[in-house]
Amino acid sequence: MKSFGSDNHSGVHSDILKAIAAANVEHDLAYGDDKITASLQLLFKQLIGEQAEIVPVFNGTGANVVCLQTMTRSHHGIICADTAHINVDECGAPEKHTGCKLLTVPTTDGKLTPDRVKKHFEAFGFQHHSQPKVISISQATELGTVYTPAEIKALADLAHAHDMFLHIDGSRLCNAAAALNMPFKAFTTDCGVDAFSFGGTKCGLLIGEVVVLLRPELSRDALYMRKQAAQLYSKMRFVSVQFEAFLANDLWKTLALHSNRMAALLGEELAKLPGVKLAYPVQANGVFVAMPRKVINALLKEYFFYVWNEERNEIRLMCSFDTTEEDIRAFVAAAKRLTEAI
Amino acid sequence: MKSFGSDNHSGVHSDILKAIAAANVEHDLAYGDDKITASLQLLFKQLIGEQAEIVPVFNGTGANVVCLQTMTRSHHGIICADTAHINVDECGAPEKHTGCKLLTVPTTDGKLTPDRVKKHFEAFGFQHHSQPKVISISQATELGTVYTPAEIKALADLAHAHDMFLHIDGSRLCNAAAALNMPFKAFTTDCGVDAFSFGGTKCGLLIGEVVVLLRPELSRDALYMRKQAAQLYSKMRFVSVQFEAFLANDLWKTLALHSNRMAALLGEELAKLPGVKLAYPVQANGVFVAMPRKVINALLKEYFFYVWNEERNEIRLMCSFDTTEEDIRAFVAAAKRLTEAI
Amino acid sequence: MKSFGSDNHSGVHSDILKAIAAANVEHDLAYGDDKITASLQLLFKQLIGEQAEIVPVFNGTGANVVCLQTMTRSHHGIICADTAHINVDECGAPEKHTGCKLLTVPTTDGKLTPDRVKKHFEAFGFQHHSQPKVISISQATELGTVYTPAEIKALADLAHAHDMFLHIDGSRLCNAAAALNMPFKAFTTDCGVDAFSFGGTKCGLLIGEVVVLLRPELSRDALYMRKQAAQLYSKMRFVSVQFEAFLANDLWKTLALHSNRMAALLGEELAKLPGVKLAYPVQANGVFVAMPRKVINALLKEYFFYVWNEERNEIRLMCSFDTTEEDIRAFVAAAKRLTEAI
Amino acid sequence: MKSFGSDNHSGVHSDILKAIAAANVEHDLAYGDDKITASLQLLFKQLIGEQAEIVPVFNGTGANVVCLQTMTRSHHGIICADTAHINVDECGAPEKHTGCKLLTVPTTDGKLTPDRVKKHFEAFGFQHHSQPKVISISQATELGTVYTPAEIKALADLAHAHDMFLHIDGSRLCNAAAALNMPFKAFTTDCGVDAFSFGGTKCGLLIGEVVVLLRPELSRDALYMRKQAAQLYSKMRFVSVQFEAFLANDLWKTLALHSNRMAALLGEELAKLPGVKLAYPVQANGVFVAMPRKVINALLKEYFFYVWNEERNEIRLMCSFDTTEEDIRAFVAAAKRLTEAI
Repeated sequence: MKSFGSDNHSGVHSDILKAIAAANVEHDLAYGDDKITASLQLLFKQLIGEQAEIVPVFNGTGANVVCLQTMTRSHHGIICADTAHINVDECGAPEKHTGCKLLTVPTTDGKLTPDRVKKHFEAFGFQHHSQPKVISISQATELGTVYTPAEIKALADLAHAHDMFLHIDGSRLCNAAAALNMPFKAFTTDCGVDAFSFGGTKCGLLIGEVVVLLRPELSRDALYMRKQAAQLYSKMRFVSVQFEAFLANDLWKTLALHSNRMAALLGEELAKLPGVKLAYPVQANGVFVAMPRKVINALLKEYFFYVWNEERNEIRLMCSFDTTEEDIRAFVAAAKRLTEAI
Repeated sequence: MKSFGSDNHSGVHSDILKAIAAANVEHDLAYGDDKITASLQLLFKQLIGEQAEIVPVFNGTGANVVCLQTMTRSHHGIICADTAHINVDECGAPEKHTGCKLLTVPTTDGKLTPDRVKKHFEAFGFQHHSQPKVISISQATELGTVYTPAEIKALADLAHAHDMFLHIDGSRLCNAAAALNMPFKAFTTDCGVDAFSFGGTKCGLLIGEVVVLLRPELSRDALYMRKQAAQLYSKMRFVSVQFEAFLANDLWKTLALHSNRMAALLGEELAKLPGVKLAYPVQANGVFVAMPRKVINALLKEYFFYVWNEERNEIRLMCSFDTTEEDIRAFVAAAKRLTEAI
Repeated sequence: MKSFGSDNHSGVHSDILKAIAAANVEHDLAYGDDKITASLQLLFKQLIGEQAEIVPVFNGTGANVVCLQTMTRSHHGIICADTAHINVDECGAPEKHTGCKLLTVPTTDGKLTPDRVKKHFEAFGFQHHSQPKVISISQATELGTVYTPAEIKALADLAHAHDMFLHIDGSRLCNAAAALNMPFKAFTTDCGVDAFSFGGTKCGLLIGEVVVLLRPELSRDALYMRKQAAQLYSKMRFVSVQFEAFLANDLWKTLALHSNRMAALLGEELAKLPGVKLAYPVQANGVFVAMPRKVINALLKEYFFYVWNEERNEIRLMCSFDTTEEDIRAFVAAAKRLTEAI
Repeated sequence: MKSFGSDNHSGVHSDILKAIAAANVEHDLAYGDDKITASLQLLFKQLIGEQAEIVPVFNGTGANVVCLQTMTRSHHGIICADTAHINVDECGAPEKHTGCKLLTVPTTDGKLTPDRVKKHFEAFGFQHHSQPKVISISQATELGTVYTPAEIKALADLAHAHDMFLHIDGSRLCNAAAALNMPFKAFTTDCGVDAFSFGGTKCGLLIGEVVVLLRPELSRDALYMRKQAAQLYSKMRFVSVQFEAFLANDLWKTLALHSNRMAALLGEELAKLPGVKLAYPVQANGVFVAMPRKVINALLKEYFFYVWNEERNEIRLMCSFDTTEEDIRAFVAAAKRLTEAI
C-alpha cells in the first residue's frame, strides 16, 4: 500500500539502483576525489552555470546547515517563513550548527515577500540584534506552493541591496522545476540566487542531496564546513552516480511531473467532496486540504499522513514518484466513503 | 586496480546491494519507524546485550559526534590518543558539535593505557580546566592495533571509578572482532564499555554506521541529538537492511577475516624486503611500514596510499574486503623491484 | 541631565562605591574563593532559601546564558515571550551558547500564560522538533509589567508537570519585588521557580548580576559553565561586596521603590496630555506610552529614549534609582510644550 | 598578608578607584556610546596606531574568545603553546565559542618559534584537518618569559605568508612592555601583529580588558561578536575610565616595572638557596623555581601559590603592583628557614 505521509515513504527508482550497481566495479578515490563526482561537477556547471560549485551531502538538514554556514557568522540572522523546514522540522540544527537566530515571518501560503521580510531590517547596525544576512526560502514550499522567477528575483534583489544572500532549500526543487516547466537555471542563477540545495532523496534517489554554491566566497571553505558538519561521504561516487542517472534523459523531470500530476488529481478530486477545501493551491506534489475532524480521524485509521494544522483541521498529503492514479482513486474513495458515513 | 589508500576505496559487497534491492519493494515509514530498523534493533540486542539501543547514522564522524554528545556537556574533556581519528581526521567536528576539549595522550601504538590517561585527572574539580568525562579509544586503532578485552576493561574500570564513560570509535570494529576471534559483546558490553560505534562503510557496506548506547541515560535523548546533528536518514530502512545482511550468516566475519589476512600477508612479505620495517604489529587490516623515502616516492607513482609519518618515513597500507592475494603479490613485487632499483 | 533611555544610563549608588573601596584592603583569593563571596552565598540562602546556590557573573546576558545552560541540552527549546530580552536584545547569545531554539509566544503585556505556552507542547516526543525544556519569563517584564506570585506558580506547575524548568530573567527583579512589596522568596522559591538571575547593574550597582540556582542538578556543573562562558571574574570579591551593600539595610528596596515611584508619576502625568496613552500598566520602573509621532520626534531632539514600537508610535521611558521628581517634571513639561506646539 | 598565588589576588590601585568615582557624576549613554569610551578609542589610536580599533570587554577569557572569533571560522585551527592560557586555563572556552581546534606545540620556555609552529602546516588544504588560521602567543608568556620584537615579527611574517593571523593574549602586556622598555606599538603593530588583548585586571585595575584589532576586516563585526559572547558592559564608561587613568602619566609603567622588579628580586634571592633553581628566566612578574618537594609542602602551609609542574616540583610565584620588598624578604626568609629545617 502506498503512503501519503511523505514523499520519503517511497523507495528508490529502479534506474537509480542500477546506476549504483554499475558504479560498483572497482576501487576509486574516496571523499569526492573520484571520477564520477568530477563529472557530476561538470554536469552541474552546464545545468546551473559556470560558477556553480557542488558539495554533495547526505540529507536535507545536512544540505541546509552546510549551505547556511557558508553564508553566515554566528551573529547573523536568517530570515525565513515560520513554516520553513529549517524553522520547524530540523530540531534546532540550523541554530546549533551556525549559531544564528532564525528570524521568522508569518505567511499565508509558505512564501516570503519583500514586504514581509523587510520588517526584520530594523535590526541593521544595532549591536543587540542578530544581523540579518540570509533570506531563506523553500522551493517548492512546505505548503506545496511554488515561487515564480519574478518572486525569487525580487527577494534576491532585496537581499543584495542589503549585503545579504538569497538561499533556497531545494529538497523539492525538481517538483518546482517541473511545475514551472523551466530549466533549473531560470529560477536560480538567473534570478540572483546565491546558494541552494538540490534534493534527491524525496524525488526517487536512495540517498543524497547536492549543495550548489554560486559565489566563489561561499565555496572557498565549503569542503571543510561539510567535513566538520559530518556530511562528507567517503564512498561519494555512490551518491554522485545517482544524480548522474537522475539528471540523464531528464529522469528527474519524468518523476517530478508525475508526482505533481498525481497531487493535482488528488487535490481536484478531494475538493469535490462536501466539507473539503483546498488550503493552498496545489502547485507541486503536496496537497493540503481542510476536512471535518471526524473524517480525518477515520482516514487516519486507514492511511498514514500528517495533520498539518490542528486548529484548522488541515491535513498534508504527499505524492511520490511512484504514486499511481489507482492509489489516488483508492484514497479519494475512502475519503468519500468516510465523509458520507459521518 | 586495487588501492591500498583506504578501506573505503573499495566498493560494496554484492550481498549488500542485493539486500538494498530486496528492501525496495513498497512504501514504508521514514526516519527509523520502519519494520527493518525495528528488527535490526532486536538483532543488536541479541548481539550486544538487552540494554543495547541503536542509533543508525550516515558516517563515522557522524557516529562519533552523536555518540560523544550523549555522554558530554560542553565543559567536559574527552581523553583520546593523539593519533585518534576524532583528534586528527574530523576537521574539528567533535569540538564543534560537543563544545568539548580533546585531551590528547601520546602513545607508542595507538592504544591508551590507564597510566597515560591518568595524567589528565589533575583537572578534576578545578573550574579553569575542562573536566574529563569520556575516555575514547578506537578499536581497531588508527595504527592497526587491537585492544585485548583486558585492556578495554582496565580503561572502563578507570573511567567508571571517576564517573566517566568509555567510548569506542568502532569504524573498524569488525576487523577487531575478527582479529580477537570473539563475539562483539565480549569486548564491549562485557568489558564495561558505555557506548560505541559499529562501522559498516569501511567493511563492505554502501553506507551506514550504527551508534550503540549501553546505558539508558545515554539513549534517552539520542534521537534528538542525531536529528540536530543532521544524521537522521529519512529512508532509514536502506541503511538498516545493509546491516541485517552484514550480520546474517556472519558475512561481516568472512569479510573482516579476509581483509585482516590480506594485511597480515602484506606485512609479512614487505618485512622481508631490505630496509623495510613494520612500524606496528599488524593486528587488523592496516599495515604500517617504514621504508626508504626513495622507495616510497617511487611507489607513490604506481599506487595511491598515505605517508602516515613524514619524519619517520612510515606509510599506511589498508586492505579491504575485496583485496586479493594477487593484489598483495603485485604490490610486494613493485616494492621489491623499486627497492632493488634504488 | 538625566536620561530616560535606560536604567543603565545612570551611574553607581554612592554606598556601592564605598563598599568597593572598603573591600580594597589587601590580597584575597581569586575566582570566588574569597571571604566576601562566601558570606554573600550565606546571605542569599537566608534570602531565597537553603537550596539557593549563587553564581555571580558580569552582566545580564551572561547571567541568562549561564543559567539557561544549566537547564538545557542543545536539542531543547526555550519558551519565552516574543518580546523577551533573550529573544530580541542579546544578538543570538542564547542560541549560540546553548544551541537551543527559542520558541516564542506573542503576548499582550509581555507576560506568558499557561495557555499561550502550551501550544508549543505539540513538539513533545517528535524527533524533528526542538523539545521544550524551559519556560523563561522576565520579572519585571520588558514591557514594565510584573507577574503576581499566582501567575508565576501557574507557570512553574505547568513546567514541572512536563519535566521542564521555570526560569526568571531578573535583571529588574528588585523593581518587581518592590512593586509586589514582597520578599524575593515569596515569588521565586515559594512559587516553584527553578533558577533565576538577580540583577544589580540596572539597579544602582557598578557591575554584577547573580545567577541563583534552586536545584542541586542545576548547580552541579554551573561553575564550569560560567568559566567556559567567560563569565568568571578573577577579583570576584568586588562584585560580591556590591551585592552585600545592596542587600544590607534594604538599600535595594529603597532604590527600587524610588525608581518605581518615579515611573508611576511619569506615567500618570504623561497620560494627562492630549493624544498620549499608556501602552501597558506602569507596574515597575518603565513607562510605555503611545504619543503622536511628531511629538516623539520633537522630544527626541531634547531627550534620548527608545521608540519601542514603530508601528504603534510607542516609546519607552525608564526611571533609575537617581531619577528625581524634578527630572520627571521637566520631561513632562517638555512633552506638554511640544504637544501644544504641534 | 600578600599572596604570591596570582597577580589577581591583589586589589585595585587607588588612582583607578578615584577615576571610577570621578566618572560617576551623571547619566551617560550605555554600551560604549559614552564620551569616555570615545576618548579611550582615540588614546589607543595614538598608542598603537591609527588602524587600532578597540573593543573593551570584561575579562581575559572574554578578550581571547572575542578576539579569536574575529579571526576564525569553526573549521580553523589555532596554533598555540601547550602551556597557553587559552589551552589549559579557560575550560574549553575557545573551542566552545569559536568551534575551532587548538593545535598545540610543546615549548621549552612558553614561547612559540616558527619551526615549532610549522609542523602544523601539513594540514593545509586537506579537508579532514582543521585549517591553521591563527598563531596565538602570550606576551608575557604563562612561564614568565617575554618575546622580543624580532621573535614576534618572525611569527607574524610566517603567519602572513600563509594567510594566517598573529594574535597576542596580552593579559600581562604591560609587564612585557615594561620588561622590553618599549612602547606597545613597537612590539605589536610594528611587528605585524593582527590583533591582541590589552590586560588591565592583573595589573591593578578593578576590572577590564581591551581587545585591540588592527585590521578593518577583523573589526567589522566585532561589536556583534562581543555582544553575542556576553562581553558587552552596559555602563562601559566605568571600564574605559580605568584604562584612561591607567594610561595617563604612565601609571601602567610604574606599576608593571614595580611588579617586574619584585619578581626579579624574588628570583634572585630564591636562586641563592640550596636546592632551588630557576625553571625559566625571570623576565616579567612571574617567578618559576624548582625546589625540593618537602620545602614546597612546608611553604604551602604558610603561603598560597600554585605548584605549576608536579613532576618537576616547579612552583609559580606571581608579583603584583602592590607587592613590596618586605613581602619578598619575608617569603625568601620563610623559604630559607624551611630549607634549612629539612
